[in-house]
Amino acid sequence: MIPRYSRPEMTAIWSPETKFRIWFEIEAHACNALAEIGVIPESAAKTIWEKGSAATFDVDRIDEIEAVTKHDVIAFLTHLAEIVGPDARFVHQGMTSSDVLDTCFNVQLVRASDLLLADLDKLLEALKRRAFEHKDTITIGRSHGIHAEPTTFGIKLAQAYAEFARCRDRLVAAREEIATCAISGAVGTFANIDPRVEEHVAEAMGLKPEPVSTQVIPRDRHAMYFATLGVIASSVERLSVEIRHLQRTEVLEAEEYFSPGQKGSSAMPHKRNPVLTENLTGLARMVRGYALPAMENVALWHERDISHSSVERMIGPDATVTLDFALARLTGVIDKLLVYPEHMMNNLNKFRGLVHSQRVLLALTQAGVSREDAYRLVQRNAMKVWEQGKDFQEELLADEEVRAALSEEIIREKFDLGYHTKHADTIFRRVFGEA
Amino acid sequence: MIPRYSRPEMTAIWSPETKFRIWFEIEAHACNALAEIGVIPESAAKTIWEKGSAATFDVDRIDEIEAVTKHDVIAFLTHLAEIVGPDARFVHQGMTSSDVLDTCFNVQLVRASDLLLADLDKLLEALKRRAFEHKDTITIGRSHGIHAEPTTFGIKLAQAYAEFARCRDRLVAAREEIATCAISGAVGTFANIDPRVEEHVAEAMGLKPEPVSTQVIPRDRHAMYFATLGVIASSVERLSVEIRHLQRTEVLEAEEYFSPGQKGSSAMPHKRNPVLTENLTGLARMVRGYALPAMENVALWHERDISHSSVERMIGPDATVTLDFALARLTGVIDKLLVYPEHMMNNLNKFRGLVHSQRVLLALTQAGVSREDAYRLVQRNAMKVWEQGKDFQEELLADEEVRAALSEEIIREKFDLGYHTKHADTIFRRVFGEA
Amino acid sequence: MIPRYSRPEMTAIWSPETKFRIWFEIEAHACNALAEIGVIPESAAKTIWEKGSAATFDVDRIDEIEAVTKHDVIAFLTHLAEIVGPDARFVHQGMTSSDVLDTCFNVQLVRASDLLLADLDKLLEALKRRAFEHKDTITIGRSHGIHAEPTTFGIKLAQAYAEFARCRDRLVAAREEIATCAISGAVGTFANIDPRVEEHVAEAMGLKPEPVSTQVIPRDRHAMYFATLGVIASSVERLSVEIRHLQRTEVLEAEEYFSPGQKGSSAMPHKRNPVLTENLTGLARMVRGYALPAMENVALWHERDISHSSVERMIGPDATVTLDFALARLTGVIDKLLVYPEHMMNNLNKFRGLVHSQRVLLALTQAGVSREDAYRLVQRNAMKVWEQGKDFQEELLADEEVRAALSEEIIREKFDLGYHTKHADTIFRRVFGEA
Amino acid sequence: MIPRYSRPEMTAIWSPETKFRIWFEIEAHACNALAEIGVIPESAAKTIWEKGSAATFDVDRIDEIEAVTKHDVIAFLTHLAEIVGPDARFVHQGMTSSDVLDTCFNVQLVRASDLLLADLDKLLEALKRRAFEHKDTITIGRSHGIHAEPTTFGIKLAQAYAEFARCRDRLVAAREEIATCAISGAVGTFANIDPRVEEHVAEAMGLKPEPVSTQVIPRDRHAMYFATLGVIASSVERLSVEIRHLQRTEVLEAEEYFSPGQKGSSAMPHKRNPVLTENLTGLARMVRGYALPAMENVALWHERDISHSSVERMIGPDATVTLDFALARLTGVIDKLLVYPEHMMNNLNKFRGLVHSQRVLLALTQAGVSREDAYRLVQRNAMKVWEQGKDFQEELLADEEVRAALSEEIIREKFDLGYHTKHADTIFRRVFGEA
Repeated sequence: MIPRYSRPEMTAIWSPETKFRIWFEIEAHACNALAEIGVIPESAAKTIWEKGSAATFDVDRIDEIEAVTKHDVIAFLTHLAEIVGPDARFVHQGMTSSDVLDTCFNVQLVRASDLLLADLDKLLEALKRRAFEHKDTITIGRSHGIHAEPTTFGIKLAQAYAEFARCRDRLVAAREEIATCAISGAVGTFANIDPRVEEHVAEAMGLKPEPVSTQVIPRDRHAMYFATLGVIASSVERLSVEIRHLQRTEVLEAEEYFSPGQKGSSAMPHKRNPVLTENLTGLARMVRGYALPAMENVALWHERDISHSSVERMIGPDATVTLDFALARLTGVIDKLLVYPEHMMNNLNKFRGLVHSQRVLLALTQAGVSREDAYRLVQRNAMKVWEQGKDFQEELLADEEVRAALSEEIIREKFDLGYHTKHADTIFRRVFGEA
Repeated sequence: MIPRYSRPEMTAIWSPETKFRIWFEIEAHACNALAEIGVIPESAAKTIWEKGSAATFDVDRIDEIEAVTKHDVIAFLTHLAEIVGPDARFVHQGMTSSDVLDTCFNVQLVRASDLLLADLDKLLEALKRRAFEHKDTITIGRSHGIHAEPTTFGIKLAQAYAEFARCRDRLVAAREEIATCAISGAVGTFANIDPRVEEHVAEAMGLKPEPVSTQVIPRDRHAMYFATLGVIASSVERLSVEIRHLQRTEVLEAEEYFSPGQKGSSAMPHKRNPVLTENLTGLARMVRGYALPAMENVALWHERDISHSSVERMIGPDATVTLDFALARLTGVIDKLLVYPEHMMNNLNKFRGLVHSQRVLLALTQAGVSREDAYRLVQRNAMKVWEQGKDFQEELLADEEVRAALSEEIIREKFDLGYHTKHADTIFRRVFGEA
Repeated sequence: MIPRYSRPEMTAIWSPETKFRIWFEIEAHACNALAEIGVIPESAAKTIWEKGSAATFDVDRIDEIEAVTKHDVIAFLTHLAEIVGPDARFVHQGMTSSDVLDTCFNVQLVRASDLLLADLDKLLEALKRRAFEHKDTITIGRSHGIHAEPTTFGIKLAQAYAEFARCRDRLVAAREEIATCAISGAVGTFANIDPRVEEHVAEAMGLKPEPVSTQVIPRDRHAMYFATLGVIASSVERLSVEIRHLQRTEVLEAEEYFSPGQKGSSAMPHKRNPVLTENLTGLARMVRGYALPAMENVALWHERDISHSSVERMIGPDATVTLDFALARLTGVIDKLLVYPEHMMNNLNKFRGLVHSQRVLLALTQAGVSREDAYRLVQRNAMKVWEQGKDFQEELLADEEVRAALSEEIIREKFDLGYHTKHADTIFRRVFGEA
Repeated sequence: MIPRYSRPEMTAIWSPETKFRIWFEIEAHACNALAEIGVIPESAAKTIWEKGSAATFDVDRIDEIEAVTKHDVIAFLTHLAEIVGPDARFVHQGMTSSDVLDTCFNVQLVRASDLLLADLDKLLEALKRRAFEHKDTITIGRSHGIHAEPTTFGIKLAQAYAEFARCRDRLVAAREEIATCAISGAVGTFANIDPRVEEHVAEAMGLKPEPVSTQVIPRDRHAMYFATLGVIASSVERLSVEIRHLQRTEVLEAEEYFSPGQKGSSAMPHKRNPVLTENLTGLARMVRGYALPAMENVALWHERDISHSSVERMIGPDATVTLDFALARLTGVIDKLLVYPEHMMNNLNKFRGLVHSQRVLLALTQAGVSREDAYRLVQRNAMKVWEQGKDFQEELLADEEVRAALSEEIIREKFDLGYHTKHADTIFRRVFGEA
């Protein structure tokens, strides 16, 4: 996470201010529950809420205390006591630091998920809009980087839409995974804290109680979360790579937006580089890389060790901030992508009609020509296109042996691009529920 | 995937025989659909099914053909034609190799998932049985590898149960992810094949049609699948590490099963090594490692490139076979785990009662002793335990200043282990729905 | 490691036969040393060598014994005793299984390294030959996939040569890292075995004694080894991606070899897919992926645990066999690469002379035109090329304002491609020591 | 990289101030070379050096310009022009941004390496000191976490020393790898810049010229660099895990330093957690994780794409700052590690003499007892120790059948711990060159 690739709303989730505010809310909600079950006075809970809500937590002051106590939660509680006064002694009763830390981390991840879901919604919206815009924009489909058969640019974008819709579903599931709360005390036995406190705090914070925490919330949840972000990042990479390919000088079927007044290389108008999608390719590598330490975090020793903590202090912000930035950048790219249907058609016609050779071959065999002869006929005309730059349709029409089997009308019909795109609507209905 | 860490049922899913049988089924179901919509004769579809079903595909013969054609699907179709006769010309009409390959791979992954789900069920069953057996077996909970507060061995296993139950849910979702079928022809446009064929084959093979395939089924699905296996493997590691710790010479609270007649090191009865769980730790590293190439596979070029193929030929079998073996091995370990409650109690009492110091401290403050004095009182008695091996309870009872605040009854009550385990039932009800 | 991506010589290193032969050599050399220092009779050492050398170890028989003893080294020693007779009791004296296993693994890795070094030598040879062949073959250099300035195809290959020469150096270092031998007994203290035995075996097997083994050879060595293979694989990917790009339909500056008689898609002569380099891209992902479990293997518990073993049984063969195959395949690709200088020139001229705009700009400013005016002049002519397909040189020659500053001769000189390639020799001398 | 796990000297390498200073130096040295070969006036080069050296680059001002130009190097050059005046037009002649950026990144990595090497030297020093201090401190060696045979704590540390000495060698090699300079212009052809400029700048900056750069310095160098950091981090993890194990409540053979006055859990003196080494375990996971995106960075498209850049902006600081912090923290841990030889001896004697059973077994067979009988004799006495807590030596001395084969003197001699540690000096000489 570096400022260059960060957006303020996501960054704010990981600020000390936000963290301390969440800590306060957890503690204060716990006080409410403790008061309700009669462990602490109602008045104390009330005072804690009132004074804490009104206060601004002083990060520098807390750091100052932590420098002495070497313990972040104790430092915060000490500062809170400075604010709340004597009733502060009722705060954190029967709880451990992990109750606060782990629940807070999950709150942060839930909030991060919500921003990421909103990011995905915007991306999906942009993809849908552009997909419909280009539902019938014919372009060559490529396998192995080699021209294969025609498709439409809208189908390409519909594929991306379907992929990111899956990413959205995965993120919803991942959010669900980490939306848990633990207020279970040392080694998670509830010896010193009533399970009803956990239930109350969970509900108040929009979480579910963790069925068994062992002082810590189990890290398989977080592993799944960060693995999910890694998969989403991989989809960001896929679409970015597609655009980088389309923008290649020799292809130039689409380009990242370039404002009319913008000066790329003023002398070289072709020098418009797909730097945004290249950047996204690199960011995807980073987000993917964070999945691994998250998986290694699962095997904590016994009820807990703290090796996960340093990892999470880094990947918590790094993965969410970077992916948030990436999704927003990708949305911008799609939203304003310059699309060149004419270039698409030029590229498709690079081998003057050869893209239809399979259909002609099939037509010949259907007309009763043997498989071997059909191949021979198609190939000898195809080679004239390939080697001498002739037009495939014209060559076929001029080939008597071909014409003996196929009428001009049938030959011309085999060059109909609509044949390839006739199911664009089917595909759109599958993806968008409409076409 | 190596024989040493493989089980036959999972290995069989990845055999050439199974693969060719699935290929045949895909092709034959497609013929049915093609016949139904009138593209090929009904009789041909019937012949194909009959002759293909009766035949055994000759793997060596197919390899022989592939050595010439350099193409595995063509080799198979050639061999199928040898079996079916002239009607074979109706097979594979309008399809591409990827239709067969990708759908087959997903069928294999679905079947692998079903075995893995069964593995998880057995593991969950073993964990549940042992958890209830030890619901009240008191053991020390440890944070940072250091004694913290008492818990029960059953709670430890309940945690593992809850974790693997989550793994099961994740695998169900991952199975859902890859249960798709594509019969969409070159670049996925259905130009040469009716979408109804795909729908028919999908249903027949227990899959759903892929909304947009682009000749290939999009690899974000597979990335999610292998990432999920990686997370499950990480949970295997966690439980394995727990057992390795418990079996340490100095801890010895549990041991991998060792038959009475078995000769470890015959001369050194203590030399019973947790080799199964060590082995599982290594296998977890492998399964986790396969998640990365799976994620890198997502960004294929344009409609498809074939870089994913070599990766999947390896990780398909490697990840599923290894995880299947690991889950089964772990189930065996849990099922027969030797548990030593007496050692657990001995360890818990290593610092003769010190584990209860927090409760005594609290009792003192609740009895009106100032926080500072309470600390001082507890600490001076704790140090006698720590440094001179005294018994904490006895020291407290003999300390007049302590006794001025707390009665013998209250002091003794603070050493009640039941205090720590009173919520075992709560936790069990959360995890198992019963206690 | 699967047969499809394996070559016999590397595979043979990992066969049970090879392994048992190495185990025998380690044991027999140790016997020699033990005899020399008087621990066992010279005659016994002699008998062991003679009978063992003459024998073929029966893998099935050893497996059969292992099925009972559950220990591979004991199974082997039992079988060896069947061959050697009573003197077998002098084998393995004071040694542990790890002495045999770890030393053998390093012998295998050393042998694998030697094959990989030979692979790299062949690749370097092919790269050098093709680089010199195309030292002056002009092609467009691309940044961001966009045309930048001219370079030569030979310089591209010289870069690859330099990169693989670095890979070779790294592999030499990695080979050095793992060329160690441990015969140090339980926990590596030499309590039961004289260090001279280790020195003797090390020398006999072409290794160095491990300074401190702790029963196992420390796994940081292996981590470094597999990380190095991962870096080499990444370079394989780089060159493969380059070729995949060059073979794109729209670029077509080079192609994987395609024999004149070979039938790609017979009807579509352009459908010649870069399947070998796509395959290499996937294999690179696999080899890279093995680096991670190797790194996780480093942190064994105390003097040793056996979690590394399952990992190494897999990645030992998997990484070396796959990289061997990949390097050989890449060498074949380079060796027979079809290079199309004419297409390179066509692509370079796609924007009829625009590639020289920077030089014209510079010439204008050097001729006293202000920076702003120079830009304006270049840009207005560049736009005619870009938008109307005019020829840049002709437009400049026809632009009076330009001609006021630059003579025809100077303008023409700025379109000299030799300007860009004048340092090809400098670069070649740096890389190859000759030009 | 977060402040909590950062040290100022390493952080400073990655500050904007440092970066701009290095950029300036690269540009100014290039001017010197350009002046020397007559491309720009000597006086200009002099002015540039003088004004630039005297100036403080204003990071905010540069950011302000970049906000407009969207290009960091141009923003810097613009600001430099503000400082230098008209002669600034001679700066950067014939160069590309990558010349500055890539050379600067390598300068930063070289400087980071120098700090890391100094870190390793301090760690090695601490390890050596503590190793010699404990050369003869007997402790139990453990395989699989189970007691095996005695070793010394010094040998454990000697192993760590040898491992980090290897890490040092690897880092020296990795530093060498990335100590290169490229001043080669667009696509690296030296078309607009004389190779002598590169040679001059390289020497001035303590680098070597990159043999073939293609606008960018090839990223296999960086992949190797970050992979090396990952391996070093794995060794940090190994030693950290060792200490975490030793500090376990049940083992307690060593502890992270805890000052006499320090308050852990004041009431629970045993609650001294190995939080530093747990933290290091997590940091190791992070540094290891950065190796992967670095390897994925290798396969840039054609002469360059910019996908590596976002990765490096993150992992450049993240990996070096984190590893620097980790090495320093580990050095502190080792330096002040509390070692408890008495606990080591207690643990070793946990099974009262059983650790010597192998030697007794051997002695019996050497005394002519059959292998089977020897086993039986040892085992029946061993079981008394294991099951009834008897003393192994006493039992053997009281066993008539044993005594029939072995004298009391011989039996007692077999319990000599010195037998196991007699080669400590050999090992120390191998590792340290002295004992």
